[in-house]
Amino acid sequence: MKRKSFCEERAKDCSGKRVKTPKAKQLLFTRNFSFRGIGILTIFTTYMSFQLLATDKDSNARAGLLQTAHGEIQTPIFMPVGTAGTVKAVHFRELERDVKAQIILGNTYHLYLRPGLNVLEAAGGLHKFIGWDHPILTDSGGYQVYSLSEIRKIKEEGAEFRSHIDGSKHFFSPEYVMDIQRTIGADIIMAFDECTPYPCDYDYAKKSMAMTHRWLDRCVTRFQETQPKYGYEQALFPIVQGSVYADLRKQSAEYIASKGMTGNAIGGLSVGEPDEEMYGMTDLCCSILPKDKPRYLMGVGTPANILESIALGIDMFDCVMPTRNARNGMLFTTQGIINIKNEKWKNDFSPIDANSECELMRTHTKAYLRHLMHSGEMLAAQLATLNNLSFYLWLVGQAREQILVGTYKSWKDKMVKQVMTRL
Amino acid sequence: MKRKSFCEERAKDCSGKRVKTPKAKQLLFTRNFSFRGIGILTIFTTYMSFQLLATDKDSNARAGLLQTAHGEIQTPIFMPVGTAGTVKAVHFRELERDVKAQIILGNTYHLYLRPGLNVLEAAGGLHKFIGWDHPILTDSGGYQVYSLSEIRKIKEEGAEFRSHIDGSKHFFSPEYVMDIQRTIGADIIMAFDECTPYPCDYDYAKKSMAMTHRWLDRCVTRFQETQPKYGYEQALFPIVQGSVYADLRKQSAEYIASKGMTGNAIGGLSVGEPDEEMYGMTDLCCSILPKDKPRYLMGVGTPANILESIALGIDMFDCVMPTRNARNGMLFTTQGIINIKNEKWKNDFSPIDANSECELMRTHTKAYLRHLMHSGEMLAAQLATLNNLSFYLWLVGQAREQILVGTYKSWKDKMVKQVMTRL
Repeated sequence: MKRKSFCEERAKDCSGKRVKTPKAKQLLFTRNFSFRGIGILTIFTTYMSFQLLATDKDSNARAGLLQTAHGEIQTPIFMPVGTAGTVKAVHFRELERDVKAQIILGNTYHLYLRPGLNVLEAAGGLHKFIGWDHPILTDSGGYQVYSLSEIRKIKEEGAEFRSHIDGSKHFFSPEYVMDIQRTIGADIIMAFDECTPYPCDYDYAKKSMAMTHRWLDRCVTRFQETQPKYGYEQALFPIVQGSVYADLRKQSAEYIASKGMTGNAIGGLSVGEPDEEMYGMTDLCCSILPKDKPRYLMGVGTPANILESIALGIDMFDCVMPTRNARNGMLFTTQGIINIKNEKWKNDFSPIDANSECELMRTHTKAYLRHLMHSGEMLAAQLATLNNLSFYLWLVGQAREQILVGTYKSWKDKMVKQVMTRL
Repeated sequence: MKRKSFCEERAKDCSGKRVKTPKAKQLLFTRNFSFRGIGILTIFTTYMSFQLLATDKDSNARAGLLQTAHGEIQTPIFMPVGTAGTVKAVHFRELERDVKAQIILGNTYHLYLRPGLNVLEAAGGLHKFIGWDHPILTDSGGYQVYSLSEIRKIKEEGAEFRSHIDGSKHFFSPEYVMDIQRTIGADIIMAFDECTPYPCDYDYAKKSMAMTHRWLDRCVTRFQETQPKYGYEQALFPIVQGSVYADLRKQSAEYIASKGMTGNAIGGLSVGEPDEEMYGMTDLCCSILPKDKPRYLMGVGTPANILESIALGIDMFDCVMPTRNARNGMLFTTQGIINIKNEKWKNDFSPIDANSECELMRTHTKAYLRHLMHSGEMLAAQLATLNNLSFYLWLVGQAREQILVGTYKSWKDKMVKQVMTRL
């Protein structure tokens, strides 16, 4: 790769294009650092900032504005999952214009294995590689190491695993995961943690949490020792663990909060536990994690899970449900949930969702989408995914508006029933 | 289905929306017919028309304008194949805006089996079912009956076959195929024929051709006895057969021409014979088929096949090659042919095709598309298909411009080499 000159990097970094909203507060500062032996360079960087705009009077729901080098994010927000550098079946143009996604998620494990770090670095980072000039968050790869890879061994030093693609052997340490995420170049990167399964006995959960905390310290150290590779700022979010044990969650949330990072995440939930346990743990964590920083509940969830968790004080969500379930014919709509494969839609020529933000859902019919799904046509997955993501983004957008006008709680109680109705 | 009132039907039929180009010549006439027992109705119909605008001085290439009730088609034209009511992996919005398709093809065999005639009729025809308000052509189903269905028996009365989906037994007669295509409602429908394989012995080719001619007579009779179901005109194209035997092709072309239909097709080519034989037969047929009517060469072909056949006097093409090969990683570009899976593209961050009419090909890189293809991501098929179809439509558009300015032959000789180069 022909490396761009420092001047080009700086020009781009400070241009209006990168920062989508001129109103957004930006802190510019000058920093000196060594750039791969090229010498001492001086670049401008924007500090990520989070602005709390409103808190619901009847719940802990919050509306905020998270500023990144690739544009602002209006919270609460849902982040579509773009596993291997693509949100499956969706063009980026559609993500932007139809789904109105503000930030997407990439999976470190997948991107590390394919296309690999050399290609990503040569491309100038993930944003350029995939052609998405908006914010990106990457997970730490831990979750996939535990769930996908063929053989894995977790020890204090890190996690050893074999690729699910070709069986090759790899080792992720907290430090290496920071380095990988520097190379991927997402705006928000996640600490390397162990996501405990459910159920998980107390002793294991406690030991695992303690190791996650020690890994976090190593992540923070490495993060602070290194610099972004592509001239724009990255933020590291630590992750609360502790399974479904209140004392562990409290301890973990306090430890994570003490790190003073830009934002904080809650992991290890939505792994099979009852919703009430998930809400209880989330509520507890939110009561401890700082109010002036964004809170990200990882891997959650159904529309109801999202609305309930917003009420507890969560600002950011990601989940494969809208994309994965779309490919199996499960549609989330403004009126409720549809299994589009069902016989009842065979002659239903009404729009897929007449109230959808996406024009394609207002023009294509249920009968047509059912036909595509039964015929195994790719357009079925394309349309269903667009529908579900448009709905998820619409839902969090509506939630935000309700928070801003102070009517979130009553709206949420009504909406949870409506959007979870089986049609 | 709630049938629309006659007034609604008529209003739609005469509206400016349906007929895309006000300049296009339209003949309106009044016709009486019985409408499924509802009584005698009077509707307005537009006569399909073909206008020959220019013929190349150094070849038989022609530029024309084919007017249909769903808009005009600038010839020479390539028709993307939309087998089961979808051009695989492509949104109709993309077909319109990115590919700039003017007419697409549907397969009678597939649509008849799924979603089936009841659904299509209840939807108000294929255009409405799929949400495509531009011209459509349907084949007769014959080709798929012979190539896809599990058991088939061809006799004078028609073809008996079992569905490749569920093994159910069906029978296509020339009359029934006309009825089916009335229900599907494409603007151009095809006569039921037997497409002979290659090689095919002379006696079988001769017998088969004679039966195809008798089937054509039955198709024409049924076509003339029946009316369109959705208030807009349909045209029936007969098909020349005769394998690679000049005397049979001559005899068949003369018979087909004698029917005086709106347009004519050449079938039974591009089934494995050498290109030179295909061109020879096509040339012979074009010398007989009337100049003032569109000529459609079925199932052809590579970019070179298309350019050479345009030079022989062909106006319309369809082929699964751009769509099917896209899904396997074969890209047709303005500079030549690319196997995007190859290692050489791994770090190639140049656009997929810098000269493509489709913006996505100018922004996404070869390295990214290679990654998607290797990862088995749906977006790979989506982008590659868009690329190939955009290219095919660009190619015939360029051909048309060259014909109009009188430089087709020399441009074609240069272009055939360029677009068939393996990059």
